Amino acid sequence: MNFSSKLLENAVAEFAKLPGVGQKTALRLVLHLLNQDRDDVHKFSAAMTTLRNEIQFCKICHNISDQHVCEICSAPKRDQSLICVVEDTRDVMAIENTSQYNGVYHVLGGLISPMDGIGPSDLQVDTLVERLATAEVKEVIFALSATMEGDTTIFYLHKKLKHFNISISTIARGIAFGGELEYVDEITLGRSIATRVPYENSLSR
Amino acid sequence: MNFSSKLLENAVAEFAKLPGVGQKTALRLVLHLLNQDRDDVHKFSAAMTTLRNEIQFCKICHNISDQHVCEICSAPKRDQSLICVVEDTRDVMAIENTSQYNGVYHVLGGLISPMDGIGPSDLQVDTLVERLATAEVKEVIFALSATMEGDTTIFYLHKKLKHFNISISTIARGIAFGGELEYVDEITLGRSIATRVPYENSLSR
Repeated sequence: MNFSSKLLENAVAEFAKLPGVGQKTALRLVLHLLNQDRDDVHKFSAAMTTLRNEIQFCKICHNISDQHVCEICSAPKRDQSLICVVEDTRDVMAIENTSQYNGVYHVLGGLISPMDGIGPSDLQVDTLVERLATAEVKEVIFALSATMEGDTTIFYLHKKLKHFNISISTIARGIAFGGELEYVDEITLGRSIATRVPYENSLSR
Repeated sequence: MNFSSKLLENAVAEFAKLPGVGQKTALRLVLHLLNQDRDDVHKFSAAMTTLRNEIQFCKICHNISDQHVCEICSAPKRDQSLICVVEDTRDVMAIENTSQYNGVYHVLGGLISPMDGIGPSDLQVDTLVERLATAEVKEVIFALSATMEGDTTIFYLHKKLKHFNISISTIARGIAFGGELEYVDEITLGRSIATRVPYENSLSR
């Protein structure tokens, strides 16, 4: 693209580094910002730098937090003996939105993916083992993506954790509510037949 | 959404103000920035504030520029007697990318749109009239969108400019190259028949 200004070109280049943002979208967003008040643009920029500089990660569950210990870990009403292992903070938000879970979390910060060079040492695995060794935990739930990386991570963690005297579970996989049977892929359908549940159990859930 | 951090919530809210960016996209972009080096995030923020604070508009054509007079207006090789009137800087970039135009520009900064409360006084109309009165201009080309707002603006400008002894033209409208006839809407097709050009002329273009 032929930019009439180096400043504009620079701003567009910075925006275009974001995932899923191409040159044209970046230009549209930058021109939008250019039409805003100086104060608004300053607020936008400041929000990013403040976030990056001042963000903390909960020292217990490693979720993004404003304090040393996040609100979930410090809430007296939450069941500290139930730990849900998730990939990142988006999964915590998704589960919190269901209002179905009253335990605490452990944020791994990623999934084991040899193709991307991400091994167990890059994730919060040791701190999870430490947590199980020191705190009184009854159950660990793996709520990881139903992908190759998710399954690899669960397999690895299960081997690491099975000597603890706790029950280990994964969230149920199957047909989504509202899903039509004929459009479900065969792996999901096959596994949902293999892992069928008694009708009474499916009602109580 | 249930954010685990006020800083995160604030950054997501700022991103979600951008056009076409929803809460989920904003969260994805902010988490991406959070994974970058502090320096990179600082560079991102600084690019926006610097752009907003230091950007200038060419005092001749009103295009975005780093100097008082933009590179196009100050280029000795450009034909100063040919002015292409466009809506905004994106249109200048689009026309520059064709490498077919050697004149200069006039950026209106918008289109007349009574529905949005944008009248001629909000646009760089007076400066265009001034330019025609003082500089030696032979032709004005309207390169505006083929919309109601574009047509209204051309109609208004034509009335304002017709007493000058210059030729006034608009860019050709018709079927796009590569366009299949059966998919062209009837207004475009009808007008492209009405404004048909001699075959020899269509070749030379």
